[in-house]
Amino acid sequence: MTELWLVGIGTGNPDHLTMQARQALAAADLILIPRKGPDKADLADLRRQIVQTVLGDAGPVAEFDLPRRDPDLPYLTAVTLWHDAIAAVWADTIVAHPAARRVALLVWGDPSLYDSTLRIAARLDPAPRLHVVPGITALQALTAAHCIAINTLGGAFTVTTGRRLRDHGWPDGVDSLAVMLDAGGAFEVLPAQDYQIWWGAYLGMEQQILRAGRLDMVAEDIRQTRAAARAAHGWIMDVYLLRRV
Amino acid sequence: MTELWLVGIGTGNPDHLTMQARQALAAADLILIPRKGPDKADLADLRRQIVQTVLGDAGPVAEFDLPRRDPDLPYLTAVTLWHDAIAAVWADTIVAHPAARRVALLVWGDPSLYDSTLRIAARLDPAPRLHVVPGITALQALTAAHCIAINTLGGAFTVTTGRRLRDHGWPDGVDSLAVMLDAGGAFEVLPAQDYQIWWGAYLGMEQQILRAGRLDMVAEDIRQTRAAARAAHGWIMDVYLLRRV
Repeated sequence: MTELWLVGIGTGNPDHLTMQARQALAAADLILIPRKGPDKADLADLRRQIVQTVLGDAGPVAEFDLPRRDPDLPYLTAVTLWHDAIAAVWADTIVAHPAARRVALLVWGDPSLYDSTLRIAARLDPAPRLHVVPGITALQALTAAHCIAINTLGGAFTVTTGRRLRDHGWPDGVDSLAVMLDAGGAFEVLPAQDYQIWWGAYLGMEQQILRAGRLDMVAEDIRQTRAAARAAHGWIMDVYLLRRV
Repeated sequence: MTELWLVGIGTGNPDHLTMQARQALAAADLILIPRKGPDKADLADLRRQIVQTVLGDAGPVAEFDLPRRDPDLPYLTAVTLWHDAIAAVWADTIVAHPAARRVALLVWGDPSLYDSTLRIAARLDPAPRLHVVPGITALQALTAAHCIAINTLGGAFTVTTGRRLRDHGWPDGVDSLAVMLDAGGAFEVLPAQDYQIWWGAYLGMEQQILRAGRLDMVAEDIRQTRAAARAAHGWIMDVYLLRRV
């Protein structure tokens, strides 16, 4: 391998694909698709569907089993070892296709935003020449679905994780806060009457769900809707934007 | 008009266009293109080129002269009146095409991020049904070009403006700060040896320029490169990411 292309594919709507992403996939000698994700989200199907849309059945796809993260280790240790294991599987899969000079990986959302693909790629030895193709993120799908801006006029905003909101509360000096990777309901640490929320799950997909309103008016609905949707689909991905009222 | 589609087109690379954006333009009865921007960036040409790529010469384009912002008024007053004036010109242009039910506007980057199109659209009366199609932002083009993530592992990040960085300095509790809309060199308020910068101008375009390094090592190069590029092209758009070393 001499080139590794990390291709952002958006959030589950195949129409999120950019022309640049299509060209990158069409030019790839090998497209790596993980067969089993860490959760039940069947993203492998979406990736196959995107490759088929762009390349038909002849796409040079190699599927591989994604290693599992050890749930018994401390978080950072588990993540580090997991990334090592994924890099090893990529390397094995690539070595099995010695003629492939241009290898592509489809990345959910955008490779720059809360995604580990760049960190895993940095473990490859010899180091390939990296290329990143940006893709539509869940935050953009959220603001588009609600027809809102993420920032107030000339204002700043912060993007954080559910874990950080839960552990550290609302960051000082911030008026707009986008929250990703929330395992559920981190907004409950806030005084709900002081915040507006725009929430979305399965953004860009057919099963997309949206809620918006003052947090004290909609928090319970979001909690129940989220739990029911997660039970129905077996998985959920959601993000939200909070703003001080 | 019954529907207004705000279509994110990315940052100057026509290949940033998503399939969804192509479909939205193809389905439009009328595509509004501003003829003169507030700066010398000839973005009208880019918009025409994109419409032509998608629709050929038959695109239902209506060009209009963008009003100018009054430089003598206080900033917020000037912006408010300017947005009023733009909404009025949109309304006039749309009224001149009474058969158009689906009207589209091409928005640089993504309509959610430091863009006024949603605020201007909110002034239309009667209110159209709004649709937003997300597009690749300059921040994504920046991180893709540098092959970096915008966040540290599990970390938060803040997006702000050059004006806010200059006026308020580095925000408390932040380790990654993306800066947009900087009229030039707001990073000079920082102790340069403590920060890493990833800078880019004309991101995604042919004339793209990138610089990265510890701020004290590259700040002067960025200042000079920026001034020279601005003089050569007559305009510049640049963004950057800063991280504490």
